[in-house]
Amino acid sequence: MTVQHQPISDDQRAVEDDVVERVLRSFDGCENPRLRQVMQSLTSHLHAFLRDVRLTEEEWEQAIAFLTEAGHITDDKRQEFVLLSDTLGASMQTIAINNEVRGDATEATVFGPFFVEGAPRIELGGDMAFGAPGQPCWVEGTVTTTDGSPVAGARLEVWEADDDGLYDVQHDDGRVAARAHLFSDDDGSFRFWGITPTPYPIPDDGPVGRMLQAVGRSPYRASHLHFMVTADGLRRLVTHIFVRGDDLLDRDSVFGVKDSLVKDFVEHAADEPTPDGRKVGGSWSSVWFDIVLAPADA
Amino acid sequence: MTVQHQPISDDQRAVEDDVVERVLRSFDGCENPRLRQVMQSLTSHLHAFLRDVRLTEEEWEQAIAFLTEAGHITDDKRQEFVLLSDTLGASMQTIAINNEVRGDATEATVFGPFFVEGAPRIELGGDMAFGAPGQPCWVEGTVTTTDGSPVAGARLEVWEADDDGLYDVQHDDGRVAARAHLFSDDDGSFRFWGITPTPYPIPDDGPVGRMLQAVGRSPYRASHLHFMVTADGLRRLVTHIFVRGDDLLDRDSVFGVKDSLVKDFVEHAADEPTPDGRKVGGSWSSVWFDIVLAPADA
Ligand SMILES: [Fe+2]
Ligand SMILES: [Fe+2]
Repeated sequence: MTVQHQPISDDQRAVEDDVVERVLRSFDGCENPRLRQVMQSLTSHLHAFLRDVRLTEEEWEQAIAFLTEAGHITDDKRQEFVLLSDTLGASMQTIAINNEVRGDATEATVFGPFFVEGAPRIELGGDMAFGAPGQPCWVEGTVTTTDGSPVAGARLEVWEADDDGLYDVQHDDGRVAARAHLFSDDDGSFRFWGITPTPYPIPDDGPVGRMLQAVGRSPYRASHLHFMVTADGLRRLVTHIFVRGDDLLDRDSVFGVKDSLVKDFVEHAADEPTPDGRKVGGSWSSVWFDIVLAPADA
Repeated sequence: MTVQHQPISDDQRAVEDDVVERVLRSFDGCENPRLRQVMQSLTSHLHAFLRDVRLTEEEWEQAIAFLTEAGHITDDKRQEFVLLSDTLGASMQTIAINNEVRGDATEATVFGPFFVEGAPRIELGGDMAFGAPGQPCWVEGTVTTTDGSPVAGARLEVWEADDDGLYDVQHDDGRVAARAHLFSDDDGSFRFWGITPTPYPIPDDGPVGRMLQAVGRSPYRASHLHFMVTADGLRRLVTHIFVRGDDLLDRDSVFGVKDSLVKDFVEHAADEPTPDGRKVGGSWSSVWFDIVLAPADA
């Protein structure tokens, strides 16, 4: 902290303490103990923030205007409050809190706003790109439990941005592309064609984008491919895989990168045969991702 | 705090610390030192809150839905984010921070959402009710500096809710009532007719109202009359006066009450002559309010 404030008098401190005390007490009558805890903790931390930075009345007005604008740009397709939570690391922190480190289970990361229910099913080895522009990428791996047993029939939802840096829902032609679901094989293995992930900016034409610009941060996310994996009796996993060597790994705009999720995407020349013999008509890539699911009750 | 959590492992603590560190570092490149300070402090307190309460993913979703709904109910006339700030005491704390206790200067309180620019002017002794329903109230006092000098020509903006618990702008007939501005006399004195303040609820048909209900809090504000006082070379004062004996004083929904702002509103029978000889056709009240303005640069 490089900005210094005047020391505060004892009288002034007492006035500010009194405000905090009164707000805390106002929640004493809350009959839901969890809600009381959350509201009282929120009060303590919110007031500590206001007092630490000595928030000015003009800054308070700017905060109200920011939230108002975020509310007005938010609709069925655009969620500025999720972007705000993401870019302040609050989403990633909530995920960390709720997905405690559990032995060798695969780590979780942010869900993001681009998952869609009801994506088409593909067979093992099928193509989830559905014509989305991008370099073909062969994705292969296994689903196991933390004690190493294969998980047959695990449902894998996969989705990603195309080479234009856009998810299908961000195009306005109603296309469904670069998203699908599939099921792991009897031995827990899975494989499919997708496209090599490329970087894309989070939507940055709203107040969150202006905040990023004001603080000198990029809206770009490190290149990634989304996974959501579910199987009976096992903990749902929401995660990504990232591309080793991507220079955005250490400045992902939503802090989603974890070392364990960075994978080697191997480049292959056009004349190299593909694992399933498919002709892809150009260079392609491949990646291996072993998924380990924790017990549901862990 | 009555809700206990499982102890957190060292590994888990390290993961959560790492998220905080990465978000803090993301603001290191911000060239505006004040903005950097505010964003880094916000990050620290926000993450401390999430970790203290071990926020669940479902609660995070509820928070996003709450903010979204607040954004959608907010328009030119309704400001749910101000209500949220008010009911969490953040508005009052910001006012406390920016209006440090200064000798005998009159204390400030919340501005509220119902001030309107361009309220009609009344002469000294005039009536600011403009037909608003309520018991007539004679308001009298002086405006002085902290060293006791009278302030001539101070501009007083005054506004209040009517007996129905509504400000004029909350009626949909476009009326202008129970608001006015006037100027203090050569000797710093002022006097006008208003109406005796009565309690009213803050708008409670939105997410903030539901929050108050869920925690067992009333949306009602203690009865009050708003003042904004400005004069050359003196600090602008935004405040209220409250009614001694009002049983809402200790549970004002926005924490605006300060002991020094609670005044004796004296009840007068219908047959008691008014100070200016006006016939008011029923009982009336009177109150004295001496206003002390701090120097502008204090
Ligand atoms: Fe994504
Ligand atoms: Fe008010």
